[in-house]
Amino acid sequence: MGSLSSLNSICIDGGCFVKYQDGVKNSMVKKLCVRASVAKSVPQNIEIKTQRSEKFRIGVLGASGYTGSEIIRLLASHPNYQITLMTADRKAGQSIGSVFPHLVRQDLPDMVAVKDADFSTVDAVFCCLPHGTTQEIIKGLPSSLKIVDLSADFRLQDVAEYEEWYGQPHRAQELQKEAVYGLTEICRPEIQNARLVANPGCYPTSIQLPLIPLIKANLIEMKSIIIDSKSGVSGAGRGAKEANLYTEIAEGIHSYGVTRHRHVPEIEQGLSEAAKSKVTVSFTPHLMPMSRGMQSTIYVEMAPGASTEDLYHHLRHFYEKEEFIVLLGKNEVPHTRHVRGSNYCLINVFPDRIPGRAIIISVIDNLVKGASGQALQNLNLMMGIPETTGLLFVPLFP
Amino acid sequence: MGSLSSLNSICIDGGCFVKYQDGVKNSMVKKLCVRASVAKSVPQNIEIKTQRSEKFRIGVLGASGYTGSEIIRLLASHPNYQITLMTADRKAGQSIGSVFPHLVRQDLPDMVAVKDADFSTVDAVFCCLPHGTTQEIIKGLPSSLKIVDLSADFRLQDVAEYEEWYGQPHRAQELQKEAVYGLTEICRPEIQNARLVANPGCYPTSIQLPLIPLIKANLIEMKSIIIDSKSGVSGAGRGAKEANLYTEIAEGIHSYGVTRHRHVPEIEQGLSEAAKSKVTVSFTPHLMPMSRGMQSTIYVEMAPGASTEDLYHHLRHFYEKEEFIVLLGKNEVPHTRHVRGSNYCLINVFPDRIPGRAIIISVIDNLVKGASGQALQNLNLMMGIPETTGLLFVPLFP
Amino acid sequence: MGSLSSLNSICIDGGCFVKYQDGVKNSMVKKLCVRASVAKSVPQNIEIKTQRSEKFRIGVLGASGYTGSEIIRLLASHPNYQITLMTADRKAGQSIGSVFPHLVRQDLPDMVAVKDADFSTVDAVFCCLPHGTTQEIIKGLPSSLKIVDLSADFRLQDVAEYEEWYGQPHRAQELQKEAVYGLTEICRPEIQNARLVANPGCYPTSIQLPLIPLIKANLIEMKSIIIDSKSGVSGAGRGAKEANLYTEIAEGIHSYGVTRHRHVPEIEQGLSEAAKSKVTVSFTPHLMPMSRGMQSTIYVEMAPGASTEDLYHHLRHFYEKEEFIVLLGKNEVPHTRHVRGSNYCLINVFPDRIPGRAIIISVIDNLVKGASGQALQNLNLMMGIPETTGLLFVPLFP
Amino acid sequence: MGSLSSLNSICIDGGCFVKYQDGVKNSMVKKLCVRASVAKSVPQNIEIKTQRSEKFRIGVLGASGYTGSEIIRLLASHPNYQITLMTADRKAGQSIGSVFPHLVRQDLPDMVAVKDADFSTVDAVFCCLPHGTTQEIIKGLPSSLKIVDLSADFRLQDVAEYEEWYGQPHRAQELQKEAVYGLTEICRPEIQNARLVANPGCYPTSIQLPLIPLIKANLIEMKSIIIDSKSGVSGAGRGAKEANLYTEIAEGIHSYGVTRHRHVPEIEQGLSEAAKSKVTVSFTPHLMPMSRGMQSTIYVEMAPGASTEDLYHHLRHFYEKEEFIVLLGKNEVPHTRHVRGSNYCLINVFPDRIPGRAIIISVIDNLVKGASGQALQNLNLMMGIPETTGLLFVPLFP
Repeated sequence: MGSLSSLNSICIDGGCFVKYQDGVKNSMVKKLCVRASVAKSVPQNIEIKTQRSEKFRIGVLGASGYTGSEIIRLLASHPNYQITLMTADRKAGQSIGSVFPHLVRQDLPDMVAVKDADFSTVDAVFCCLPHGTTQEIIKGLPSSLKIVDLSADFRLQDVAEYEEWYGQPHRAQELQKEAVYGLTEICRPEIQNARLVANPGCYPTSIQLPLIPLIKANLIEMKSIIIDSKSGVSGAGRGAKEANLYTEIAEGIHSYGVTRHRHVPEIEQGLSEAAKSKVTVSFTPHLMPMSRGMQSTIYVEMAPGASTEDLYHHLRHFYEKEEFIVLLGKNEVPHTRHVRGSNYCLINVFPDRIPGRAIIISVIDNLVKGASGQALQNLNLMMGIPETTGLLFVPLFP
Repeated sequence: MGSLSSLNSICIDGGCFVKYQDGVKNSMVKKLCVRASVAKSVPQNIEIKTQRSEKFRIGVLGASGYTGSEIIRLLASHPNYQITLMTADRKAGQSIGSVFPHLVRQDLPDMVAVKDADFSTVDAVFCCLPHGTTQEIIKGLPSSLKIVDLSADFRLQDVAEYEEWYGQPHRAQELQKEAVYGLTEICRPEIQNARLVANPGCYPTSIQLPLIPLIKANLIEMKSIIIDSKSGVSGAGRGAKEANLYTEIAEGIHSYGVTRHRHVPEIEQGLSEAAKSKVTVSFTPHLMPMSRGMQSTIYVEMAPGASTEDLYHHLRHFYEKEEFIVLLGKNEVPHTRHVRGSNYCLINVFPDRIPGRAIIISVIDNLVKGASGQALQNLNLMMGIPETTGLLFVPLFP
Repeated sequence: MGSLSSLNSICIDGGCFVKYQDGVKNSMVKKLCVRASVAKSVPQNIEIKTQRSEKFRIGVLGASGYTGSEIIRLLASHPNYQITLMTADRKAGQSIGSVFPHLVRQDLPDMVAVKDADFSTVDAVFCCLPHGTTQEIIKGLPSSLKIVDLSADFRLQDVAEYEEWYGQPHRAQELQKEAVYGLTEICRPEIQNARLVANPGCYPTSIQLPLIPLIKANLIEMKSIIIDSKSGVSGAGRGAKEANLYTEIAEGIHSYGVTRHRHVPEIEQGLSEAAKSKVTVSFTPHLMPMSRGMQSTIYVEMAPGASTEDLYHHLRHFYEKEEFIVLLGKNEVPHTRHVRGSNYCLINVFPDRIPGRAIIISVIDNLVKGASGQALQNLNLMMGIPETTGLLFVPLFP
Repeated sequence: MGSLSSLNSICIDGGCFVKYQDGVKNSMVKKLCVRASVAKSVPQNIEIKTQRSEKFRIGVLGASGYTGSEIIRLLASHPNYQITLMTADRKAGQSIGSVFPHLVRQDLPDMVAVKDADFSTVDAVFCCLPHGTTQEIIKGLPSSLKIVDLSADFRLQDVAEYEEWYGQPHRAQELQKEAVYGLTEICRPEIQNARLVANPGCYPTSIQLPLIPLIKANLIEMKSIIIDSKSGVSGAGRGAKEANLYTEIAEGIHSYGVTRHRHVPEIEQGLSEAAKSKVTVSFTPHLMPMSRGMQSTIYVEMAPGASTEDLYHHLRHFYEKEEFIVLLGKNEVPHTRHVRGSNYCLINVFPDRIPGRAIIISVIDNLVKGASGQALQNLNLMMGIPETTGLLFVPLFP
């Protein structure tokens, strides 16, 4: 993607993005990235601030979890942001260093309960709270705030689907309509104008980044997309659960949530919109002994006449100006280890033994491109800051 | 399976095994388990020995690798076998405790070079040598010896295929014809009468155990069998390779040998014979941080009218008398951790979101049911000893 | 050890065990192994049972934790025991396979709440409950039962010390007096006659096995025994705690409970009794990413004139008839991996750079020799069964 | 440390650094940081370059190992350096992305054989070559180059000691005299004026940082310093060795090189110079399953009258202006996980149970503060760049 001209050429094929660029909304087709309410322009105070080269003041809601601490890590060296508020209800009153000793050197305010937070002191928030709770909190935030929400609460356009998969009614449906889906490389124009961004899930990120361009270009069939994903354990959060103890995870692998993982509707929403028809995928996540990292091995049937080279070159061309999406060279296999701690997504395409099928592999760090890194990438866009600012970490290996 | 009557009922469905049982060979169809030369009866000296309740004398060729040491572990408490010969060319003259300190308490002869081995002192051998070398060694063994070969040298019936995948001519083609494929629960009658058993690869074991019965029962389609396997590192052996260093494996996952793994022809051979037509599968192995363990997540299209319940019940019935093949209860997910160190294979069947498809998951310990454990199971059969003898280890967890 | 003659020779040096053998108790010196009440002889019903070669009926109290499941693993192949009762309050009504899927093949009764247990159906129990609770439960058990208690409740002779370290009064002081300390190789004669055995902690086992013989032989100084221990995570149990999550443990190490770990008084009790004077040790445990295993690296000052060879040869001689205690050869370093899943303790002695000092290294599997394996070893002794029965598992490597 | 005034106050106590500051060398006492030849001033071309705010051109010799790749990772975001030369003999002609795929996004020259390197194109080099080889290479470099050597070749002042521990004569003794020991926080003034810095080993860094200030302040006794260190596996390099395979390292721990590790003379050199007398330490390294990280647990006897509070406060004061040395709060235990990927060293002091003794714990990332990070810190000093430039990475957790 990366340029209007490449976007145009895609949109001629796919027929979906072209209108976004001239600002006209197509209200007849549900959109992945843009919702009913029109995104607003950047507020005044933000423009002024940038001119003065002051830092934006950032709040991190739910700073005691792994996505919260990852936001803090990424912002530590960011030239444009300064954390001025951190909330964590059960750890209110504590310093970040006592909750996350690896952050002991960060000079940050103590955490407060969210009910005690003064939101007049921040320009934007990252919301790292559990689904359900999130809706209520965000509903109560000042409307001047820019918000990147890392929960699942605003990812699904269809409220009924939310209620089916999350087992509870949605209590902030107006906000849901406003929210823009934050798959950065796909929804960039909408994110730039958004006030509330629903940051994608980790699995959906690793899966939609390779598949959406291929679907839009009609290079793959919709009927048997089979996705076998492998995730590190940090995706399960820092909550104390028997199933996530070291002794229960080390030296083994298992599938979980077979066919019933809550990321399914999010994945199918994105692919369906790209395909302009309802897509049902096979999705089986696996939990394995790594703290960070995610691989999706995706088995697809190619469109008649399409070859793995076609798939590869389309993806390579589509992402050629993107910093964070890397199509590896021929036969090079993506490893999760090679993106650890970074915002990169490595992708490659392989021929299958079954004629007409291809194997697509993508890897990300579930806490960075799969969560806090993409969230920062989105806030950069929302704030008018160069998108890669504060995100050019080299992966940590070994 | 486990009894002739259940075998019969299977063979009525599948039409394949019935002739083996009355000793008539069907020369027109290539067989997975039986080859051209007729398997012999148990030699005299073995019968005598059993009567005297002496122990059979066992040789382990290639005792300095992981499959060799696993044979030694399993035999340590076996009531009918005694290791009297161990070979390891580069470690000749060393004690097993110096090569594998966890075996320091085993009272065993020192290792010798294979060229110095006296094979008149053994009744049977486990051959744990690399492919290629294996053919030459086995060709030179006394014909009175029972042999279980853990290499790939005698697994493929088609010599041309062997040469294509292993890049070298086969130099023991007569033996290859004699060899019986050692997938115990499937090929039991032939193994009982075999002199030379080609022990299956780890991936093929985890894949064929669930798929062969389903294929024979016409419950799944052959055209899009997609297999995503995850293996522990011991499958790569004990050779010093940069790629298998702790630092290169820990905390990550990657695919390898995409579409080109050498277990592919073995898998397709077994499935093709079950299907009585050439089957091509999609097979992608992954390497991950566990020393032992293997999961195959298998995505299949069901035959018209078949349901996941049908698949489940057929497998459950097929294996109901087997000690080592366990169909888990509804919704119970097999974990590799739950078979560690044991000869068990846990299997379950799940519905897929895509209508008409099912997900089959099987887990084994790659060094036990995937190698040395199945090898011992086979030798027990060959020697007329109860099949589970010395194999009823409870998995080690955590 | 292992024979009266070797015991005698030790006791001539150490002056401590000799009286036990002729049944005379020395009431003036506190004893590690024997308490105030005289141990009873084996009850009648047990003798009868052995003659009839029936199996003893075993209860496992607290079967839903790691030490409980390990007892079940070890008993699965034991020829003399049969589990007839399992308790687990929070998992009452569940099968063992649902709580520990690796035990799915075990044909065992469902778990019951301890209050619902019928103790008339068992001959002996392993008590795998938390400290505190344990006292109350054991107090209520029929006095005919043989009991091996894996908690800390009966390990300390000094009630005041128990209360200081465990922060609660001891509510079963009579039982505490009766309890025999279960460090098998050191306290064998007393264990044989015991009704209630207090099974040692994992750290104390790994530390006392090498140190007690050296102290009794006056080969080391008492004033600066420095113990640096490293433990696997299963020692922390199966309780859901943030600190034991995979993400908090993998790829790192840290000390914990520095100078305040609750195994300190147990270690000092054993060493003090051997030294016949109060010994204070430096003890620092570390938690590291392994599910099973424990190493104690022990730094000692040798007695004037003693050499590392003296230490080594004394230990080698002392344990030469023991199955489970292995003095490795010169320069061979014990690895925890080499005892995984087994009841072995590997020990070696190294010279230090500082003249007059030595380094002693011992490794065990914390769940086997450090808990359930030693518990079974003790019950074998209490029941008059050969001590190593059901315990000769070869370590699982890799 | 961090300022001359604090240095002065230390030197009044310790009597060692004061002369360095006024440029007078004390030829009678061997110095840790400064050698026979006087360090030169910063060369002209460097001064000019800084004024023009061009980037210094950097060579990385031995770029295919872990310390080399870590240098590249750290320099990727460094504002003052640009890598213009990378050597790797066996991988000459390859791109860095093919050797280290996590660096695929780095725009760097291909690697060349060291014999083909054009050193006129660089201002400074990091030398990441094996000991032995290093001497020869560095001897041949232009004398205008600034060099930070990460090997052991120039760490030991005493050539005889080098030859004893490394088993070969030293072939660059003049350079050895010139080399300055690069323990940054201790030897800062000398490093600033050095042309060739011998970067410390990882163990010596973790050990000397807490001990040297305490020794200089006469707070601990020299006679029984007992050091139990635990290292991640990357310290062993990327060479293919059986002992470092995943299967040989995972889920276990073992000591190695007991009393004979090659870092011993380096540790004793530093402590001896601080103590102004020959110090012999007990040093036992352990290898454990983590890719990065190192903990040293150090057991010391305190000087008469000294308390753990004294030790703590002295270290806290000594390092209070240092960015990278962090004295944790009371009872806070350093974890290796909390410095992963960063240049920090966390230290704390604990009372021991044995009266008069203390336990000091320090943790570092062996590849950063223990190797490449400290090397960069040193080059920053040598180049007149603010010392922390490019090093303020927040640790990566989990």
